[in-house]
Amino acid sequence: MTAPINYSGTGEWLRNEGPDHDVVVSSRVRLARNLSGFDFVNRADRVERTHLVALAREHLNACTDPFGLEKTWMEVDRLEVLDRCLLAERHLISKDMIKGSEPRAVMVNTAESVSVMVNEEDHYRIQAIQSGFRLTEAFDAVNNLDDQLDEKVQYAFHNRFGYLTACPTNVGTGIRISVMLHLPALTLTGEIERVRRAARDMVLAIRGFYGEGTDAHGDLYQVSNQTTLGKSEAELLAEFNERIIPAVIEYERQARQVMVSKRSTVLEDRCYRALGILTHARIIKAAEAMKLLSHLRLGIELGRITTIPVSTVNQLLLHCQPAHLQRIVGHPLHQSKRSAARADLIRTALSDCDL
Amino acid sequence: MTAPINYSGTGEWLRNEGPDHDVVVSSRVRLARNLSGFDFVNRADRVERTHLVALAREHLNACTDPFGLEKTWMEVDRLEVLDRCLLAERHLISKDMIKGSEPRAVMVNTAESVSVMVNEEDHYRIQAIQSGFRLTEAFDAVNNLDDQLDEKVQYAFHNRFGYLTACPTNVGTGIRISVMLHLPALTLTGEIERVRRAARDMVLAIRGFYGEGTDAHGDLYQVSNQTTLGKSEAELLAEFNERIIPAVIEYERQARQVMVSKRSTVLEDRCYRALGILTHARIIKAAEAMKLLSHLRLGIELGRITTIPVSTVNQLLLHCQPAHLQRIVGHPLHQSKRSAARADLIRTALSDCDL
Repeated sequence: MTAPINYSGTGEWLRNEGPDHDVVVSSRVRLARNLSGFDFVNRADRVERTHLVALAREHLNACTDPFGLEKTWMEVDRLEVLDRCLLAERHLISKDMIKGSEPRAVMVNTAESVSVMVNEEDHYRIQAIQSGFRLTEAFDAVNNLDDQLDEKVQYAFHNRFGYLTACPTNVGTGIRISVMLHLPALTLTGEIERVRRAARDMVLAIRGFYGEGTDAHGDLYQVSNQTTLGKSEAELLAEFNERIIPAVIEYERQARQVMVSKRSTVLEDRCYRALGILTHARIIKAAEAMKLLSHLRLGIELGRITTIPVSTVNQLLLHCQPAHLQRIVGHPLHQSKRSAARADLIRTALSDCDL
Repeated sequence: MTAPINYSGTGEWLRNEGPDHDVVVSSRVRLARNLSGFDFVNRADRVERTHLVALAREHLNACTDPFGLEKTWMEVDRLEVLDRCLLAERHLISKDMIKGSEPRAVMVNTAESVSVMVNEEDHYRIQAIQSGFRLTEAFDAVNNLDDQLDEKVQYAFHNRFGYLTACPTNVGTGIRISVMLHLPALTLTGEIERVRRAARDMVLAIRGFYGEGTDAHGDLYQVSNQTTLGKSEAELLAEFNERIIPAVIEYERQARQVMVSKRSTVLEDRCYRALGILTHARIIKAAEAMKLLSHLRLGIELGRITTIPVSTVNQLLLHCQPAHLQRIVGHPLHQSKRSAARADLIRTALSDCDL
């Protein structure tokens, strides 16, 4: 079964719109929810999981999309592996949902701004993504869907602990707020380490492009809360909205300004070299491509490169991932062939920008 | 005093003509000679050195250039340091001749195919360079000049040891045969180490671009004999002409063919990346520039890049050296400014090739 996803676009999270999109790529809020009277997913057998998927389908179909859009229902275990990878690359399902044959599903709206994973770690993982710095909109969207579901099902809820989740770090509000930041200047100057330390002190997690344990490919960093107990959803949201993210934005912008004013040749060298390699290489690995696309994006943001739209760069960031690459080429590619196909894809896309 | 050298050209050694010039950049023969009745240079005082320079001028002026060309006489200690560096970068004087204020000189013909250093390590260092694999022509040229000088002066010669020289490794024939080879394919595959070992076994020296103790910038290697005792000049020449150099040429060509037939994408990636970086970088150090120019040259030799003449690459190899760079820019450049000027120079030269 092939995923009914238009993989040629970038989806919501790389749309490059919204407030502060020069630094904030996207804002994401997700809620972890479980149904009362059912085992947690990791303890549920196949029959129970199948039942949970059927229930979820019924209830989610009965909900209205928070943005008023059409929705698509996909039973992930019935999709080709390549399509599961495609969904993960688009941040619509987690990496953990790719493997295995257990019944599980995802509901996605047409803008890819809302997705609900069923039988991931929890029965429901409700997430909303908005491009740019728009946590409140994402927060409102998940709450809207959460409220609708709450009318239809009985959530596992404890008066003292709050929402019960499979992993203790999610117990309480079950909320995770994540902001994807593009921090090339802080990375170039090495100041990113100070940001990392500050985040650790605030019990925040900083992760790379694809969540836990991944490097910050493309100078993209995901900042999120680590625990959900002890603070209300509103307090956490306010902390991100008013304190944490504005501070990082300011810090990155200062670093960019220093590059523009005091290290402008270094900056130009960096972004033009990236352009030169991307438009000429015949073999390129995903990590290198993302690093260079990030430098190119910085050059565009700072007005040094004017012939290439940021949207092209964002699209390439996504399209040079393995599953997208293979879908675009139209057939599976052995790992050894992907670097050449990726280089061709990038070269074609950038030469279309009329250099 | 400014050196009367047309630094915009490349001189003989980078002219890229002659037999086997795809691998053999240039062929050089030099003779070490000393005058009887004078101290060796390192033991001579200023008065004696001045006398030696005056004598040399008189005798060399009385000689005919082996190629029938005009000659230029330069008293190196009276030249600006930048010009001395320029002469060294053009392989017309040795690096050792740059420093100090002791009287010393060089006579160069207009093609830069013949130069005679006076008061380098020996009273005379007579050298001839020919582009491509033309050792015999170079050998004939130095012998011609040597014979002419021999009629005018009394060489320090010992019946048993042969020509006496300041350094024992030159005693005997005083000959050094050097061949500058471009070995990018052997370098890329790592097989160059086998060449190095084979050379060591044959008591040959393999050095980088600028002689002793320098790295092989630009994949350019200089192969030369280490000792001069025990073999006649003709034997040594025959060994280079018939055995050593043809073997390395064959070995490099085989490595190139393997790249073309079995690793053609890797090859194209290498040379196009080089082109991309060279046409886009804003800052580039000499060593990186030479490495990339070497990859570009390989791409041209193997027909992968057709828009750029090899002569442009060779010219850039020389012009991106510090002294040339400063002469071309027209004023001295602090080290920190050279990388930017070098990048500009390269970009301009390659964009003139109508990419």
